[in-house]
Amino acid sequence: MERVAINPMDAAWLYVEKEQAPAHFGPLIFMSCPEGDEGFVQRLVAEWRKSLTFAPPFNYRLAKGLIPRWEITPNDQLDMEYHLRHSALPAPGGEAELGIMVSRLHSHKLDRKKPLWQCYVIEGIGGGRFAIYLKLHHAQMDGMAASMLMAKCFSTDPDARNMPAPWTIGLKSSPEKLAAAKLKKQTAASQVSAWARLSNIRRALSTLGKEAYLNANSSLFAPYQGPKSVLNGRISPHRRYATQRFELAQLKRIADKAGVKINDVFLAVTGAALRRYLSEQNVLPKKSLVGQIPVSIRPAGDDAIGNALSFVYATLGTDLDDPLARLKAVSQSTESAKSLQSTLTVDAIEAYTSIVLAPYITETILGLGGYLRPASNLVISNVMGPRQRMYFNGARIEHIYGPSVLFHGQALNITMSSYADEINIGYTACRDSLPSMQRIAVYSGEAMNELEEALGL
Amino acid sequence: MERVAINPMDAAWLYVEKEQAPAHFGPLIFMSCPEGDEGFVQRLVAEWRKSLTFAPPFNYRLAKGLIPRWEITPNDQLDMEYHLRHSALPAPGGEAELGIMVSRLHSHKLDRKKPLWQCYVIEGIGGGRFAIYLKLHHAQMDGMAASMLMAKCFSTDPDARNMPAPWTIGLKSSPEKLAAAKLKKQTAASQVSAWARLSNIRRALSTLGKEAYLNANSSLFAPYQGPKSVLNGRISPHRRYATQRFELAQLKRIADKAGVKINDVFLAVTGAALRRYLSEQNVLPKKSLVGQIPVSIRPAGDDAIGNALSFVYATLGTDLDDPLARLKAVSQSTESAKSLQSTLTVDAIEAYTSIVLAPYITETILGLGGYLRPASNLVISNVMGPRQRMYFNGARIEHIYGPSVLFHGQALNITMSSYADEINIGYTACRDSLPSMQRIAVYSGEAMNELEEALGL
Repeated sequence: MERVAINPMDAAWLYVEKEQAPAHFGPLIFMSCPEGDEGFVQRLVAEWRKSLTFAPPFNYRLAKGLIPRWEITPNDQLDMEYHLRHSALPAPGGEAELGIMVSRLHSHKLDRKKPLWQCYVIEGIGGGRFAIYLKLHHAQMDGMAASMLMAKCFSTDPDARNMPAPWTIGLKSSPEKLAAAKLKKQTAASQVSAWARLSNIRRALSTLGKEAYLNANSSLFAPYQGPKSVLNGRISPHRRYATQRFELAQLKRIADKAGVKINDVFLAVTGAALRRYLSEQNVLPKKSLVGQIPVSIRPAGDDAIGNALSFVYATLGTDLDDPLARLKAVSQSTESAKSLQSTLTVDAIEAYTSIVLAPYITETILGLGGYLRPASNLVISNVMGPRQRMYFNGARIEHIYGPSVLFHGQALNITMSSYADEINIGYTACRDSLPSMQRIAVYSGEAMNELEEALGL
Repeated sequence: MERVAINPMDAAWLYVEKEQAPAHFGPLIFMSCPEGDEGFVQRLVAEWRKSLTFAPPFNYRLAKGLIPRWEITPNDQLDMEYHLRHSALPAPGGEAELGIMVSRLHSHKLDRKKPLWQCYVIEGIGGGRFAIYLKLHHAQMDGMAASMLMAKCFSTDPDARNMPAPWTIGLKSSPEKLAAAKLKKQTAASQVSAWARLSNIRRALSTLGKEAYLNANSSLFAPYQGPKSVLNGRISPHRRYATQRFELAQLKRIADKAGVKINDVFLAVTGAALRRYLSEQNVLPKKSLVGQIPVSIRPAGDDAIGNALSFVYATLGTDLDDPLARLKAVSQSTESAKSLQSTLTVDAIEAYTSIVLAPYITETILGLGGYLRPASNLVISNVMGPRQRMYFNGARIEHIYGPSVLFHGQALNITMSSYADEINIGYTACRDSLPSMQRIAVYSGEAMNELEEALGL
C-alpha cells in the first residue's frame, strides 16, 4: 500500500495523545436549514452516506510499524457508519445542550486503526438549526487548514446546490507540498546560507533568554514563565465546552481607539475573565498567566496536509486590575514576540519553534505534564475563517467554533474563530479541573463591556 | 474514607478490562410513556437530576493504591451531569437507530476515577417510547444482581408513582453479605470438612478432564475444547448491538415437545443461526462451537454487591445440520455439565470456577486473548427478569435487554433476558470482527421456526 511520510511536528501530535488527552479538534459549525425545508438534515445525511470517495487525509490511516507513517485506505475499506454519525438533541434543544453533547463527543479519542476523522450531523437545535461537528486529528491538519477546507465546502451563494462533502474534497495530497510552498514563501532575505540561518536562530534564542528570563521588566515572554495555577494540573478525559460571541465591529472599535490589534483585545478580555474566575475561587496567582498563542506560518492560500504553526508567548495581564493597563501590557508583549519572530525566516521559525517546544513535547510524551511548572498557562488560538456569510446547499452558516485539544498541564483552551462579521469563541476545558467553567465565557462578555466603558465608547 | 474490600472474582473484572474491551454491561430497558403524557421523559430526567443520594455500589469508587478496593464517595462529590445523561435519537427513531446509539455508548470505558456507572435516558423512539441504558461495571454487579435491582425500581402497579431512581436504592451494602448468604445456602451435605470439599473439587476436575478431553464421544465440554473461529480473534473498541424477541410460550412449547429445557432451545437456535452466518462467509469450523454459559450461584433473593457466577461449557451443535439432532446434542451437553456441578457445594463451585477460569483470566490480563486457542467460542447468558409486566411511574416496561462484555478472543456475546411473557435477546459484537452481525439475530428467528416445523408444531 502507498505510504506517506509524517513530518516530525505532525508526528508529535500522535506521540503526545493520551486517553485523557485526545489530540483531535473541531470545527463545530452551526447552520440554519433553508426556510421551510423540513427534511433537509435527513436528506443531507442520506446523500453524505453515499459520498464514498475519500481525498487525503480522509483516507489516511496509520501504517503498522514503529515509525509513524500514513498509508492510503482503499475507498471500500472505509466504514461510513463509523465515520458519519447522525445524532440529535433531546427537545427542546439549544446551544447549551449542543455544548453538552459536543463536550461528550469531544472526550473520546479517534480510533488509530481507522482514518482519523468522524463527522457528526446533529439535529434538534431549536429554530430549524442543526450543527456539524467534524472531528479531525491534529497530526493531519491545523486549525487554519481545517478552516480552508470548510471554506472550500461552502459557498457565498445561497442558491448553490449539490455541494460536496468535506471528505471528498480533502486537502492537498502531500505534506511535501506544504514544505515546498513554505520554501517559495521565503523572501530574498531568507535566501541565505544554512550557517547564517543557524546564527539567526541562535540570536533569537539568546534574545528570548536574556530578555524574557533575566529582565524582570521585559514585555517579552518565554516558555516556563507562567505561574502554577489550577489550569495546569493533571486532567481527566472528560470535557466541557462553552461558547461566546462578539461582533467583529465591536472588537475593531476598541482596538482602534486603544491603538492595539484586535487579537490583543481578545487576549485582554480573556485575561480579565480568567482573573475574575480564579479570584472567585481564591486561586488567582500573583504573577500574570502566560498564554501560548499559535501563529500560522502557512503560506497564504496553501491547504496542504499537516501543521504549519509556530507559537509566541504573551502575558494575559491577570495581575492587573485596570482594564486599560491590562490591554496595554498584553499589546506590548505581543509586539515584542512578533518583533522577535520577524527577525526569522519561515524555515528558521520552524526550527526555532521545535527548539522552544521540544522540552514541552518531551514532558508531555513522558506523561509529566501537570506535575512540573507549566510551559504556558493555556493555549489561546485565533483561527481566521471566511470573511463573508457562507451557505451550504442553501443552509446558512450561522457560526463556526473550534473545540480544541488539551493535555496534562493544560486544562483549558480558548479558540476564537472569526467568521463574516462576528467572532466565535469556544472554551474547551477539563470538566473535573475547572468547575462551572462556563462562567469564563460569561465573564468574557462582561469584560468586553468594561473595556468599552473604560475607553469611553 | 471508608474502604470496602473487593472479592478476587470481582477484581478480575477490573484486571481484564482494556480500552478495546470495556467491562461494563446493560441493562437496556424499553419503555412506553403513560398515554397522553407528552412531557414524561423531560420530567423524569428533571426529577432524577435531583435524586442526589447514592446507595452502594453507586457511590463506590476505586481507592488509590495497588490492591483494588472501593471507597465511599461522599454524596456531594458525585457529578450528576456526568452520571445521568439525557439523549435523543434523530427522527424518525426506531429500534434499529436505538441499537446504533447504544452500540456507540457501549464502546467507551467508564472512568475509573469516578463511581462506575452512567445512566442514559434516550428519547425519540417512535410511538411515545423511550429507553434507559444503565451502564454498570461487572466488578460490582452481575446480570442477576442488576436484574434484581431493576425489579426493585419497578412496580406491577401501573398507577404507582414517585418511584425512586436505581442509584438511590442500590444493592445490599457489602460483598460480605453475599458470602454470608451463600454460606447459609449450604445444605447439610456441604457442612463437611475442608478436606472433603477439596477432594470433591478434585474429583470434579478429574471427571471433567477424563470425560471432556479424553473421551471423544463425551457430551461433557470443558474449556479450550472449541475450535478456532472468526469469533475469537483480537477485537476493536467499537461495538454493534442487535436484538431479537421471542414469546416465552413458543420456547416452552418446543422444550416440552422435545423434552428439553427452555435454555437448550435458546442455545440450539443460537447454534443454528451461527452455523448459517459462518457458512455464508465460508468460515464455519468443522468442530462445533462451544459456548460458555454463566450460571448464577446467587442465593435466591440475595442482591449483594459483586459477582456470584459459575460457568458451564456446552456444545452449540454448529457441526450438525439437522435441527433436532442439534437440539439433542445441546441438551445432552448441558445435562452433563449440570450433573457435574451438582456434585459440588456452592463454595466448592466457587473454588472450582476459579480453577477452571484461572488460565482464561490470566490470558486476558496478559493481553493474549485472541492469539491462543479460545477458552470458549462465545459467552451465552441467560438472565432471569421479572415474570410479570412491570411499570415505572406509569410508564410500561416493554422489553429488557442486556448489552454485555467482550474481550480479546471473544468478539460476540449473546444475552437472553426473560421478562413477563417474552424472551429478549441482545447480540453484542465487535463491529470490526463480525460484518453484518445483525444477520445472526435475523437467522435466530428463522431457526426457531425451523425447529417448530421439525417438531411438527
